Amino acid sequence: MSAVARVRDAYARIGEVDRPEIWISLRREADAVAEAERVDERVEGGDVLPLAGLVAAVKDNIDVAGLSTTAGSRAFSYDPDVDAPAVARLRDAGVIVIGKTNLDQFATGLVGTRSPYGAVRNAWDPVRISGGSSSGSAVATALGIVDIALGTDTAGSGRVPAALNGIVGVKPTIGLIPTTGVVPACRTLDCVTVFARDLLLARHAVETMTGPDGADPLARADNPAPPLAARPVVAVPTAEHLEGLADGWKEAFARVVAGLPASGIDVVEVDIAPLLEAASLLYGGAFVAERTAAVGDFIQAHPELVGGDLDPTVAGIILAGADARAADYFRDRERLDRLGLEGLGRLAGTVALLTPTTTWHPTLEEVAADPIGANARMGRYTNFANLLDLSALAVPAGFVDGRPFGVMLTGAPFADRTLAQLAERLTAPPVELFVVGAHLRGQPLNPQLVAAGGTFVEEATTAEAYSLYALDTVPPKPGLAQAAEGGAAIVGEVWRLPAAGFGRFVAELPQPMGIGRVVLADGRAVAGFLCEAVALEGATDITHFGGWRAYRAAS
Amino acid sequence: MSAVARVRDAYARIGEVDRPEIWISLRREADAVAEAERVDERVEGGDVLPLAGLVAAVKDNIDVAGLSTTAGSRAFSYDPDVDAPAVARLRDAGVIVIGKTNLDQFATGLVGTRSPYGAVRNAWDPVRISGGSSSGSAVATALGIVDIALGTDTAGSGRVPAALNGIVGVKPTIGLIPTTGVVPACRTLDCVTVFARDLLLARHAVETMTGPDGADPLARADNPAPPLAARPVVAVPTAEHLEGLADGWKEAFARVVAGLPASGIDVVEVDIAPLLEAASLLYGGAFVAERTAAVGDFIQAHPELVGGDLDPTVAGIILAGADARAADYFRDRERLDRLGLEGLGRLAGTVALLTPTTTWHPTLEEVAADPIGANARMGRYTNFANLLDLSALAVPAGFVDGRPFGVMLTGAPFADRTLAQLAERLTAPPVELFVVGAHLRGQPLNPQLVAAGGTFVEEATTAEAYSLYALDTVPPKPGLAQAAEGGAAIVGEVWRLPAAGFGRFVAELPQPMGIGRVVLADGRAVAGFLCEAVALEGATDITHFGGWRAYRAAS
Repeated sequence: MSAVARVRDAYARIGEVDRPEIWISLRREADAVAEAERVDERVEGGDVLPLAGLVAAVKDNIDVAGLSTTAGSRAFSYDPDVDAPAVARLRDAGVIVIGKTNLDQFATGLVGTRSPYGAVRNAWDPVRISGGSSSGSAVATALGIVDIALGTDTAGSGRVPAALNGIVGVKPTIGLIPTTGVVPACRTLDCVTVFARDLLLARHAVETMTGPDGADPLARADNPAPPLAARPVVAVPTAEHLEGLADGWKEAFARVVAGLPASGIDVVEVDIAPLLEAASLLYGGAFVAERTAAVGDFIQAHPELVGGDLDPTVAGIILAGADARAADYFRDRERLDRLGLEGLGRLAGTVALLTPTTTWHPTLEEVAADPIGANARMGRYTNFANLLDLSALAVPAGFVDGRPFGVMLTGAPFADRTLAQLAERLTAPPVELFVVGAHLRGQPLNPQLVAAGGTFVEEATTAEAYSLYALDTVPPKPGLAQAAEGGAAIVGEVWRLPAAGFGRFVAELPQPMGIGRVVLADGRAVAGFLCEAVALEGATDITHFGGWRAYRAAS
Repeated sequence: MSAVARVRDAYARIGEVDRPEIWISLRREADAVAEAERVDERVEGGDVLPLAGLVAAVKDNIDVAGLSTTAGSRAFSYDPDVDAPAVARLRDAGVIVIGKTNLDQFATGLVGTRSPYGAVRNAWDPVRISGGSSSGSAVATALGIVDIALGTDTAGSGRVPAALNGIVGVKPTIGLIPTTGVVPACRTLDCVTVFARDLLLARHAVETMTGPDGADPLARADNPAPPLAARPVVAVPTAEHLEGLADGWKEAFARVVAGLPASGIDVVEVDIAPLLEAASLLYGGAFVAERTAAVGDFIQAHPELVGGDLDPTVAGIILAGADARAADYFRDRERLDRLGLEGLGRLAGTVALLTPTTTWHPTLEEVAADPIGANARMGRYTNFANLLDLSALAVPAGFVDGRPFGVMLTGAPFADRTLAQLAERLTAPPVELFVVGAHLRGQPLNPQLVAAGGTFVEEATTAEAYSLYALDTVPPKPGLAQAAEGGAAIVGEVWRLPAAGFGRFVAELPQPMGIGRVVLADGRAVAGFLCEAVALEGATDITHFGGWRAYRAAS
């Protein structure tokens, strides 16, 4: 799709979804289309723009030239002349930014309701919260308006809304993406994050924005962790730290964990009490004064705006740090350092900690009734990552009661790519495929399986309920079908393919072949070859041979 | 020397020097000797104890089992059951610790006078200060009582006293040596440091103590910078930041800088204003609250001790942080980060910043008259290193008015070894040696020069004032001597040798050869071969050949 077509599609989609609260400012469609025309021209002219044709939204605490930066407050807003480096790098790669998204004011919150621009409703269930603080960016991505969206994350703001809207949220190691041109929440903890519906696209966007810019003193060169081991070990919390989750979430998490060994991932339970205690320092200690240092003077200068342009909950949190003593900060810092040593020491030998991303999914009403308490519950697994300089990645992991459930991988600094590899393996376990004809070992199409990353697992036979037909194809292939009555056990082979390779393989199947589910003699139902009914009509029934090789040998 | 002999020697030396203020506690000699006997037994039994036979002193803010840790205050003191890991690692390598040394109380000061245990007098000039805060450790090392001594450094405490006492002071990158068992001054900035009279010994001690201990959350694994480039570039401050030094120090520093090119080191002037501004934050901002967090509660609980066991200047500094706000800390932290980015950016392309270590050397009386002001002047070049996470190394660089003058190299984190290489080259520039006989190219002893790291520079002749004799040696050698009257120009070669290689070469010369100074035709006086007078008696005068090769060709 051309950049122009993608941009027009994005604006059309904005109209369809009727979620005005997503946006604090939206570019004129004509301006975005004009920029997209230039991208298309450059691509046609041979320029390499690796992200050309993609449309993005940017959280409104990150500068985009030509649009105000509000951080969720009209009174605070200013008009930047230049893009933040993160934004500029995306645009240099061909991305078209179409607007700035709503957020919990000053990026303070995990709910998405703390904004004078309105509470952002969940993409899947509009009576529930979007999660925050990167609320609008997450919902714009989940609803397919944009391909990628930028958020920020100080305590979970780039991960909680990913989980609640069923998308990927990447919180890179602090300093990989410069925060120049980003309104600070807690300057030393802030990260620019990426939302996408696809993990690889999210990673591609992160890589595009990575690298010191010469202006952010906290920016650091990448120093990537080693690639994933053949059989990595993942830590999961002990049972006591999985209590208090939303109905069905504990079970959903248990299903994810139960599936890990089949994905080649070993599991060890770890008591994460020191990490959770570290997290409590974020708001319970002097660290909150970093928020005061960022925008406290502004809030103190405008008491008349509290309850109007300034969200009262946000103002209260930010000013709560005004009286904190520097000596207390240093005491808290020491406590944090010691909890980190203890907590991360327990993770030694594991490549990441796997947790639910958040703990529940409240309605807008529930949050309004208890703005602080409802919010506090949400950061249990996210709050400690930034304080302890960790990398993290939130990915979808199915649905509970029709709403998305998400899990998170938290790892060492600079383990960003390793977490992505792990997430790919975790969310897309290999597929077992039963083949009966031209894909058997030694048969003409077997190289397709090998090329897709497949490995032979075992010989197997179907349940005694199938018929086999010789089809009129080149090369010759059989068609497997459930017998209308009777039927026999048909011999074949089980192959294991990585999910992506399996997907490519299936996408390229020619008529009349298809992939469905085949029941084996031991009762397992695995993916297997089917055949369109039309091709079976008039085909020779070769069931009595018991398999394709026997038939070919005899014919 | 055996460990026992070395220990006995150390105690004898303590008696000779009559500097009781060095020590806060001293082990019984019999105990130290008993420990030394065990070291000697182990070495005789074949154990490898790389630092066996060395005697050490430990600053009294670092735990040594069996001796109280006072940090300079009787009321504060406690009795540790175990050695600090830094101390334990030295002892495991065979070092005998003989006592705990005086310090500016709570390691707060650069003068060495802020202690109820008495002001520590300078090793070279007892009316002047030792420098601090690691005062006793530096003077014990400088007076030869101990081979190495441990200090700590938060703002220069391991470097300023090294400079004022004419010894080496190594301030490693923060976290390389664990600070477990060290009374914190500013916990996140503190380093354990090493004093020695020899750079390589100091480095050996640092390496022995390096590595995480599992208890210090700030400990980091080493990540060494690349070795020194063939022709490294060193930054020096612009003239304005070399004003206000003690009489003669500017000139002494200029001499060091002028000698760098001959040592293979290029020089570039850099405006270090941002670094000096960063330094001002150490006491001028909320960072001082980290001192309050460390021992402020203790001081506040004992107002009656101020002026007695508690030094009033120290108590005032530490309590000055009590009212600082955490929000101000975060603002100061941002300012520091930005100044660091700017200041270190200016050092890009250089391997280190070379400065005087401190700015003046006051008398005890001058410091007593203005305790804060006199101290503040001393940290100009040292204060910023810890704040900005830099490595640093103070080395002696000659004398001014009979008192030591020292310079300092400050580099990136983990550049510790590179700084040592640079200091070695800087303090021991290569030597040019004039040879006239068996060491000439192609002559039988020339391989000795090559093995010592020598390189041929040029052919040269002496001034017309020398005589050459053929000596009765195997292999045949000439003897060069200044002619009593008349004399001729003798041809030879100039070779360049690294200082250490030159030292080894000279140490192995056989009779009757010696190395002195030879005046060349162009007026340069370089190191050159001489000959004992006794060997010249009766030797054949071959001056008229004009050189050894011509004589050998003709004979």
